[in-house]
Amino acid sequence: MRYFVTGGAGFIGSNLCDRLLQKGNDVTCYDNFSTGKDNFLVEAKKSPNFRLIKGDLLDEKLLESSIAGHDFVFHLAANADVRFGTNHPRRDLEQNTIVTFNVLEAMRKNGMNKIAFSSTGSIYGEAGVIPTPEDSPFPIQTSLYGASKLACEGLISAYAEGFGFQGWIFRFVSILGERYTHGHVYDFYQKLKSDPNKMQVLGNGRQKKSYLYIQDCLDAIFIALDKANEKVNIFNLGTREYCEVNNSIQWLCESLGAQPKLEYTGGERGWIGDNPFIFLDTKKINSLGWKPKLSIREGILKTLEFLQNNEWVYKSIP
Amino acid sequence: MRYFVTGGAGFIGSNLCDRLLQKGNDVTCYDNFSTGKDNFLVEAKKSPNFRLIKGDLLDEKLLESSIAGHDFVFHLAANADVRFGTNHPRRDLEQNTIVTFNVLEAMRKNGMNKIAFSSTGSIYGEAGVIPTPEDSPFPIQTSLYGASKLACEGLISAYAEGFGFQGWIFRFVSILGERYTHGHVYDFYQKLKSDPNKMQVLGNGRQKKSYLYIQDCLDAIFIALDKANEKVNIFNLGTREYCEVNNSIQWLCESLGAQPKLEYTGGERGWIGDNPFIFLDTKKINSLGWKPKLSIREGILKTLEFLQNNEWVYKSIP
Repeated sequence: MRYFVTGGAGFIGSNLCDRLLQKGNDVTCYDNFSTGKDNFLVEAKKSPNFRLIKGDLLDEKLLESSIAGHDFVFHLAANADVRFGTNHPRRDLEQNTIVTFNVLEAMRKNGMNKIAFSSTGSIYGEAGVIPTPEDSPFPIQTSLYGASKLACEGLISAYAEGFGFQGWIFRFVSILGERYTHGHVYDFYQKLKSDPNKMQVLGNGRQKKSYLYIQDCLDAIFIALDKANEKVNIFNLGTREYCEVNNSIQWLCESLGAQPKLEYTGGERGWIGDNPFIFLDTKKINSLGWKPKLSIREGILKTLEFLQNNEWVYKSIP
Repeated sequence: MRYFVTGGAGFIGSNLCDRLLQKGNDVTCYDNFSTGKDNFLVEAKKSPNFRLIKGDLLDEKLLESSIAGHDFVFHLAANADVRFGTNHPRRDLEQNTIVTFNVLEAMRKNGMNKIAFSSTGSIYGEAGVIPTPEDSPFPIQTSLYGASKLACEGLISAYAEGFGFQGWIFRFVSILGERYTHGHVYDFYQKLKSDPNKMQVLGNGRQKKSYLYIQDCLDAIFIALDKANEKVNIFNLGTREYCEVNNSIQWLCESLGAQPKLEYTGGERGWIGDNPFIFLDTKKINSLGWKPKLSIREGILKTLEFLQNNEWVYKSIP
């Protein structure tokens, strides 16, 4: 199979490229390197079946010509900067909604119709039902990021109905593991390295978080692609457990031998639009025979190990 | 109050302008006249409190300067051509999603924060729960139109959370009455006038439809604005009854004294993405003390009366 992976130089995308190549596929990575990293493609580039296109998804012409000839699209490119959404409201619209439209149009014009998409548990807003199933009550959005992913999901579903597309939509909790480069664990390790004796924590530390390890995430995606064959296939991906921000701090500190004085700032929540609790009901994907191999704690420690062995990631970020 | 009405020269918008002026408000109508009509503003233009701006919502500069100084925005402008969405996929994205973003941004930049929005019952896709309540299960979109309105709702909700906006979102069934210029009743009257002896009907005639009379619709909107004061207020608007396409044909024929031979075409449904049954649960708006004064039959006959007295509307449409 010939796969086209948008955002293929990013955290999830580059791991996906590696897995697709390991399975013997042809892979084209399309990335604008706004957050993607060449270093993440070192393995992939060793394969003769890998092709890299540096391009922007807003460049419709390049996208249309690049996407031609592929069998399947993984659309992972996105503005994933949930936290600072209100600082640049247009970014989620452009980088998520419009860009997804461009991908769908490029596919349609090239006679392609199969797409997998990385959505988010943030789409449930302040979920009334926890753990939150895929068919939970019609949510009210609380972030520009969630709203843009909602728009993307709607577009994919409409293309499925209107143009015979088939879509696999994955609503992720936070993913971590190798090549993870933003989020709590990333920030905490950086802070603890620079000062192991005290650390500021945004929010009250009681925010509940659900994390999924990248390789478990990819296993789930491949199982869903293999076994789910509806017009639109929507799956929550997460673990059946959650932790508090304080837990992840504790695990990191234990592993690092640090005993920082914690200073909580900013009230109960982390930031405006930060959801106090994303915990997804994963019965649907579990019913296909998938469950995560790593616990949240193990995933966090794997992530720490990656960060310790790859401190260059901190330097490459503005 | 100073109201800014986008799409104010359209069917619902112009009726709204009239009502707002009758209540003694200042009203600015902003319309690009892609489907709006000058004739619909004859009453409004008699008022010294009415101002008309011919402009496009994609013209951000004009929008920003025009919207300044208003207290409240009714954002009704949209591509409402549900049926031919797949002929021009970009239109819903531009005319609905992007334009709504532009309105929200123009408001934010001008320190405004109150918006009412015309959404649609199409947003529920193929609803599993009928009649469909506002908090029905997370829907899967079946039309580009529904998907774009979903995107707009998400944006408004995200602006409410992120920027302190307050939003009133109305999910309409099909609205009809004075100044109604597209849809089944409009088409059927045109066909029956040109040939009262036979008529083609798209679909099998058994498609269930729910209609609401424009003045009832506006009553509901004003009651909701008056009594609902959450950050995001979402209301289904419709009647507690529905009819089949065959019923509306029958009522029209009775009234016109026509007895056409009906020829059904195109299978069970009308068109791709046409929802076979939109029937909204209106308990939420009913609980505020609103109920429609006109039945569906009465609304259809009022509409027929308008069309008979205003045959110019057929000529002004391409």
